Amino acid sequence: MSAREVIEKALAEGRTALTAPEGRTICEEYGIATPGEGLAATAEEAVEISAKIGFPVVLKIVSPDILHKTDAGGVLVGLKTPDEVREGHRKILASALAYNPDAQIDGIQVQQMVGGGHEVIVGAVTDPTFGKVVAFGLGGVLVEVLKDVTFRLAPVSGDDALTMLDDIKAAEVLRGVRGAEPADRAALAQLIERVGRLVDEHPEIVEIDLNPVFASASGAVAADVRILVGAAPAPVERLPRERILAQMTRIFKPRAIAVIGASAEQGKIGNSVMRNLINGGYQGQIFPINPKATEIMGLPAYKSIADVPYDVDVAVFAIPAAFVAPALEETGKKGIAGAIMIPSGFAETGNVDGQREIVEIARRHGVRMLGPNIYGYYYTPENLCATFCTPYDVQGSVALTSQSGGIGMAILGFSRTTKMGVSAIVGVGNKADVDEDDLLTFFEQDDNTRAVAMHLEDLKDGRGFVDAARRVVKNKPVIVLKAGRTAMGARAAGSHTGALAGDDKVYDDILRQAGVVRAPGLNDMLEYARALPLMPAPQGENVVIITGAGGSGVLLSDACVDAGLTLMEIPADLDEAFRAYIPPFGAAGNPIDITGGEPPSTYENTVRLGLSDERVHALVLGYWHTIVTPPMVFAELLARVVAEEREKGNVKPVVASLAGDTEVEEACAYLFDHGVIAYPYTTEKPVAVLGAKYRWARAAGLLR
Amino acid sequence: MSAREVIEKALAEGRTALTAPEGRTICEEYGIATPGEGLAATAEEAVEISAKIGFPVVLKIVSPDILHKTDAGGVLVGLKTPDEVREGHRKILASALAYNPDAQIDGIQVQQMVGGGHEVIVGAVTDPTFGKVVAFGLGGVLVEVLKDVTFRLAPVSGDDALTMLDDIKAAEVLRGVRGAEPADRAALAQLIERVGRLVDEHPEIVEIDLNPVFASASGAVAADVRILVGAAPAPVERLPRERILAQMTRIFKPRAIAVIGASAEQGKIGNSVMRNLINGGYQGQIFPINPKATEIMGLPAYKSIADVPYDVDVAVFAIPAAFVAPALEETGKKGIAGAIMIPSGFAETGNVDGQREIVEIARRHGVRMLGPNIYGYYYTPENLCATFCTPYDVQGSVALTSQSGGIGMAILGFSRTTKMGVSAIVGVGNKADVDEDDLLTFFEQDDNTRAVAMHLEDLKDGRGFVDAARRVVKNKPVIVLKAGRTAMGARAAGSHTGALAGDDKVYDDILRQAGVVRAPGLNDMLEYARALPLMPAPQGENVVIITGAGGSGVLLSDACVDAGLTLMEIPADLDEAFRAYIPPFGAAGNPIDITGGEPPSTYENTVRLGLSDERVHALVLGYWHTIVTPPMVFAELLARVVAEEREKGNVKPVVASLAGDTEVEEACAYLFDHGVIAYPYTTEKPVAVLGAKYRWARAAGLLR
Repeated sequence: MSAREVIEKALAEGRTALTAPEGRTICEEYGIATPGEGLAATAEEAVEISAKIGFPVVLKIVSPDILHKTDAGGVLVGLKTPDEVREGHRKILASALAYNPDAQIDGIQVQQMVGGGHEVIVGAVTDPTFGKVVAFGLGGVLVEVLKDVTFRLAPVSGDDALTMLDDIKAAEVLRGVRGAEPADRAALAQLIERVGRLVDEHPEIVEIDLNPVFASASGAVAADVRILVGAAPAPVERLPRERILAQMTRIFKPRAIAVIGASAEQGKIGNSVMRNLINGGYQGQIFPINPKATEIMGLPAYKSIADVPYDVDVAVFAIPAAFVAPALEETGKKGIAGAIMIPSGFAETGNVDGQREIVEIARRHGVRMLGPNIYGYYYTPENLCATFCTPYDVQGSVALTSQSGGIGMAILGFSRTTKMGVSAIVGVGNKADVDEDDLLTFFEQDDNTRAVAMHLEDLKDGRGFVDAARRVVKNKPVIVLKAGRTAMGARAAGSHTGALAGDDKVYDDILRQAGVVRAPGLNDMLEYARALPLMPAPQGENVVIITGAGGSGVLLSDACVDAGLTLMEIPADLDEAFRAYIPPFGAAGNPIDITGGEPPSTYENTVRLGLSDERVHALVLGYWHTIVTPPMVFAELLARVVAEEREKGNVKPVVASLAGDTEVEEACAYLFDHGVIAYPYTTEKPVAVLGAKYRWARAAGLLR
Repeated sequence: MSAREVIEKALAEGRTALTAPEGRTICEEYGIATPGEGLAATAEEAVEISAKIGFPVVLKIVSPDILHKTDAGGVLVGLKTPDEVREGHRKILASALAYNPDAQIDGIQVQQMVGGGHEVIVGAVTDPTFGKVVAFGLGGVLVEVLKDVTFRLAPVSGDDALTMLDDIKAAEVLRGVRGAEPADRAALAQLIERVGRLVDEHPEIVEIDLNPVFASASGAVAADVRILVGAAPAPVERLPRERILAQMTRIFKPRAIAVIGASAEQGKIGNSVMRNLINGGYQGQIFPINPKATEIMGLPAYKSIADVPYDVDVAVFAIPAAFVAPALEETGKKGIAGAIMIPSGFAETGNVDGQREIVEIARRHGVRMLGPNIYGYYYTPENLCATFCTPYDVQGSVALTSQSGGIGMAILGFSRTTKMGVSAIVGVGNKADVDEDDLLTFFEQDDNTRAVAMHLEDLKDGRGFVDAARRVVKNKPVIVLKAGRTAMGARAAGSHTGALAGDDKVYDDILRQAGVVRAPGLNDMLEYARALPLMPAPQGENVVIITGAGGSGVLLSDACVDAGLTLMEIPADLDEAFRAYIPPFGAAGNPIDITGGEPPSTYENTVRLGLSDERVHALVLGYWHTIVTPPMVFAELLARVVAEEREKGNVKPVVASLAGDTEVEEACAYLFDHGVIAYPYTTEKPVAVLGAKYRWARAAGLLR
């Protein structure tokens, strides 16, 4: 029988668990090695099979009615003689029948006893967000306690499977420590790859567990196979990329916008939206829609969008939830591309039917809907502020999205205070239709956007997101703040959005697989968003710290290790070159401690050397406030040297930590304005931001 | 022979390693169980001993010339019969002699083969910073790879030893997982306690390794014992607490200060110090010392401190290193208490002899020296700014110290910008004399100081620090930023101060044992310093999140888990009480999501309920900027409600995360001014600060 036939037979019989021989048949088809074995009807057959495959052997009950064989006394290991096999056969049958007198017994499986090498676990599950996901970990109780396991989307390429072996904390074990034999990595990776292909080709496999797999120097053998089957998950519908792009382009670059529920009355959402569109400087047409007005804020108002004698791209909804459905019908008939659904009162308040209704209307008319339950969206290249907040006008190159309105407001306040240049701020709210993948598809090709930062609590279509993110990160960093990281956090997400939050470990591994830079917290996401687009991409892993304060040097080194950065081993000639610029009691090496009392020229010479030596790939600077080199003198010289070297083609990321009195704050603002990432009173933040840029550069394949 | 005699014999013989029988003798004296065993001269003796202690047995070579027995083929395990023992005896002797033909063979040790239960490691080492330190971890290759081990100062109390069992990542294993037998925790803790006592009473034991120890349900047996001996470390000299306190009090509350090298010339350090003392508002006497001046800044100048006709408590040195020694002699003769040694050019530039010389002079005169290589110190209750930086005048209750000048400057700038109230800022620089323990001894009893924050790269006397910190944390939090946390960081510390940086894991465990709150980075240390003194201590572990933005609630929950906080399981009656105040689609439970559009009264009612219900111990608030409840309205109501409840005796820590447009920054400043810890654009920081307060409260024994 083929794997397909085995699965179909089990499903036809109403079973969810495959028997061990069935599992073995499937493994054979996919080249997954299992121990030599046979099915014995009688004790004498068991002895015969044992003699053929070789002692010692394992005996296991085979019954569709006994899933947990060990609990039923249905497993005996290490039987070394024909007599032991005979006696074992009798014992297992007795135990199994005592456990479940009605169990149908198909026989006793006689299995070659494997062992030696490393015990590992390979499996696959069906994740609610990401679908088929392959897992790998080291076996044994310790790892079960320490949860040292890693996940990848199925199917997994051979190369990806190899990265899984190194992705667990105890990875060193497989390479052989303290004289232990190293595992055959290629064989193990191949086994993982085959499991991934198996579940990908057979979506009816809900779960598969190869546990333990014995991974030795001579191969990898799955000693036990457990397969659960069920209905294949429904395929996710996805629009073609071109169609998404066409719709999103009309939404972000509309020629005409209608405001459904526009109002002249201060304090109304429909008034705030009108004001923001007009005051924000939007240059397209604006059509206020209000059955009771003829003119709003100097613009002719229409009773219905149907009355507007022009084409309309976007309709912003500023009416109560109860009135949305009929109005959406009208906008659909009008042929708009996007419905910006500000109103709340849908799924987030339990009104799931109401939300389903408007999704259905939008879909029927080919309208893409943003929201509901959002603040709206900004797209600064078009001076477009379709929100009920306040206009935002610092144009720049990062696009931010948030699932929560509160986080959206924090984005706005932070942006304004730090003068962060943004291309877009988008609320996605309940995500009834437009999702992060739609937005990524637009931002991917949007020349106004050089980085994307997304706050999200769940993903409706994990694979759609991964596909889109993988495309985008080739050229632009995608930063993700995934809320509900922890068990407690996940519980809160559940109560907030009703969305099933996936296990964070799965999210974490797969977001990394997608090349996404995950931010550990809100402030980190905001700082990454602010800094990453300003920083050139590094060309290699060699980071050099130059510091005027030895104390900062130590903390900056700590921060580099935390951020996964590599402090360059300075070659002798470069070391000598640095030493020429610093006092004899300064420390070369890395960090390079130029000492505290140095004039601007010492900073200038050493920074210039670091920027111009092609073996150095990024600089981390520690500045110490002194009278000899005051903060603004340092800031101006650093900005100048970086610009001059950039002119010469020496384009490298430079970050700085400034320690000093309050003047260092002005110096940091100046440096940020000149494209040098600088923070006061922290050694961690500049390095964390550089680390984020490196994570992206590695994912984008820029560092080999 | 007693343990003392065994060790003395080995040392007398010039040995550093004890033999297995010697180790066993020592273990016996301390009640550390080892397997039954005997020393066999012949194969027949080995068989006899085996029969007596019971098969299976282990055979091990005993030779002072063979330290690594396994490498020499000198160990055989699992010998089950007299014949196997006989053959084994022959084999070991042959291997050992092949390994080292000149080895003196004392015999073959026959040992009962123990096993079963859990393999653990118990040991002790001599740490350069902390002296005798006891280690505990789970045995086996995985833990060796994962470095899952914990340390404590020796001796270790039985209770402390029990905490070690729970302090490893794989702690669950010892409690028995997947049907495994739990270990006898009391027996294991007792063994650890005994090892601690052993090394404490025998400082000549440089290292002891019990590896493996088999910890089963019936006890703990050390299967192998390895002891290294050497010279006992020299005892550390410590001044009596009363003497330190008397000196430090004269330094922090001086009646008269001399400035050695005072100058009228702008830009000179001796001028900056004079200006800061005068402009800072210091009310004691100030004596400028300068051989070439008769008057400086309106004060009569003296050629030498010897000429000053008054008693002087403190001398601030503002002269080049080369002139320090003779000037220090004079101040010593004058009977000053403290020499504030600003000059650099000592150990940090390689001038170790120069530093030793001034230490010797200070010690001879009973003068305590701060520095050298520092910016000076501030003590705001006395309006004392004895530094070359700028005056600082926001009086408050946190004392900060830094080993690095750069970090000191960052403290100053951060303090000024955040208006952080400080009692003291102290540079300790090279720490040639005055150390963190001296400062802690003063701050402990200083009523102007309610929290202490220290940046340090090393500790000269780890035990002195721990003793002092343990006393202080009973009443005041001690926050420590330990730089050189990571391998790379430690390397930088080495090059900066020449101090031997201890292994960070030892630092981390022992600082925690001392009750210190460790800050992960510079900014964290500063924020903890700013917030902790403003916050009342929590009385229990029940934390409740109340949020207007569900999105913030999820992130705040994540942050609570990261900070080691416990989200309260809300009892049914309290849940009902909260529900009465929030819309039906809001979520009770914890976080309590009051939803976004609520008026001030909803915040007020729920916050008041949380503060007044005695089962709730701390509140975390998530605010979302809306027109209905603008930021300053929220800030004023929250400050008012907290103050009103505090009046009623409901004194609990409250922290808030504010998401919104820039007005939330003003609201946060207002809240901080009113004793409510609040941050804009971050859900992590307020919770991290609350977590730090909890860590202190637990260490201080306030939470049971």
